[in-house]
Amino acid sequence: MTARTFKLVIAYDGTDFFGWQRQGARRTVQGELEAALERATGHRARTLASSRTDAGVHALGQWVGVRVPTRLSPEVLRRALNALLPPDVAVLEVTEMDRDFHPLRSVSGKLYRYVIRDGPIRNVFLRNYCWHFRRGQLDTEAMSVAAATLLGTHDFSSFSTSGSPRRSTVRTLRRLTVRRMVLPAGENVPLPCVYAGPFGTGMIHAANDSTDDHWVVFEAEADGFLYNMVRNLVGTLVEVGRGVQQPNWVREVLAAHDRRRAGPTAPPQGLFLVAIW
Amino acid sequence: MTARTFKLVIAYDGTDFFGWQRQGARRTVQGELEAALERATGHRARTLASSRTDAGVHALGQWVGVRVPTRLSPEVLRRALNALLPPDVAVLEVTEMDRDFHPLRSVSGKLYRYVIRDGPIRNVFLRNYCWHFRRGQLDTEAMSVAAATLLGTHDFSSFSTSGSPRRSTVRTLRRLTVRRMVLPAGENVPLPCVYAGPFGTGMIHAANDSTDDHWVVFEAEADGFLYNMVRNLVGTLVEVGRGVQQPNWVREVLAAHDRRRAGPTAPPQGLFLVAIW
Repeated sequence: MTARTFKLVIAYDGTDFFGWQRQGARRTVQGELEAALERATGHRARTLASSRTDAGVHALGQWVGVRVPTRLSPEVLRRALNALLPPDVAVLEVTEMDRDFHPLRSVSGKLYRYVIRDGPIRNVFLRNYCWHFRRGQLDTEAMSVAAATLLGTHDFSSFSTSGSPRRSTVRTLRRLTVRRMVLPAGENVPLPCVYAGPFGTGMIHAANDSTDDHWVVFEAEADGFLYNMVRNLVGTLVEVGRGVQQPNWVREVLAAHDRRRAGPTAPPQGLFLVAIW
Repeated sequence: MTARTFKLVIAYDGTDFFGWQRQGARRTVQGELEAALERATGHRARTLASSRTDAGVHALGQWVGVRVPTRLSPEVLRRALNALLPPDVAVLEVTEMDRDFHPLRSVSGKLYRYVIRDGPIRNVFLRNYCWHFRRGQLDTEAMSVAAATLLGTHDFSSFSTSGSPRRSTVRTLRRLTVRRMVLPAGENVPLPCVYAGPFGTGMIHAANDSTDDHWVVFEAEADGFLYNMVRNLVGTLVEVGRGVQQPNWVREVLAAHDRRRAGPTAPPQGLFLVAIW
């Protein structure tokens, strides 16, 4: 049997993983996926992901490339993998690709999201899916102004954690948005998690707070990202949002090409790899 | 210092708890809350909850009554408890009450929600917050028809797990709805969890599936519920939804006053105690 090339689109909850990449006996997404692939096909196969997400970081649409000999159709392979994988990983799509498909080189763009909760009370259901920022409400307008100054093609080395092995630190940031999200009141809410608001939707007795506006969502789209780039961008914008820096400061940080000038790295659990093109 | 009476409204993620009620060394919500109360006030105090939720069941607005000597204001007590409690429990409100407040006798109604995912692919982020029903799409119209026949004041002993110590098994079911929820497409979605759809919102490359309609949400409101009543109602309605029974069968089950006639008990992780009046 000759090996065939597949593209897998997978989602995972990063909470209980030491990130994507296999590391000895530690529980990683790659380790779980390769074990499932071996059981499904009878062959050991090496996988390669488009993004090596860190511990705690989540993925909604990670791309994984694999070459493996199998007679299974893509659809049967998808079902087999989902039956074999643990509940915090799911294979959304399996597509057979030409042999030259490469999950790093074939990628033209990526979209990440980052979620901050800036209300006083934690949300018990989303505790692993946001950065709970307790020092008051962030100024999303100032952050939006600052974010816009970073768009375009630049050397983003100020936002790359040092020791990053990439050759070029130039990337094209196509989108960087900061929006405050307001949970709807009433009962016509589309998802179970919405019910988990601190004075949650449907909690009729909580007359003091019918909506929850303590969610800030960042979206970053680029042709590629440096190591920790999204978390460093978020940590830097938060310095603006909490009033420690002015919006034009982030442009100075960018021009400095010096990681020490930027803000701290935002924690991993608020980060989602959303989509890849 | 004389003891004061407080009503706490709390939320918790039931996943890692053996339910509300203290059980020796097991991790329970009551155990965590009483430990936090003792640290905050310096006094041991017994708490009483309106609903003794089981292991895995979640709460968005559980009521807890406690009498404890303290000089802390309700607001300071709330903040102290949130600082002391683990991340999967949150105190949403603290209100000082008259001495005769009783979290069981003072309750006139309760609202529960139950969430089923009936799509083929699991949602990795909501795996602990729904019953993943894999045997095909449920007929929510038939379930709604069946649900409506249960409204009103009845002996619900067919839907109470036996061994239940309640004296009367008569309850007034004011609402029992079954709705299919459709996740919005596009990017204007209100919450991080919405991004977790299997062909999730924002996953631009997933052209084959722009919305996710594999969510079924039940709401049950009554003056009170028997032990396991919501989960037994859901399990029974699912027999109708998957075509094994006709809608009018549930009325026969109700009239039989026999637990063995009803459907199986739905699993705990889809159940949310939403609100109490």
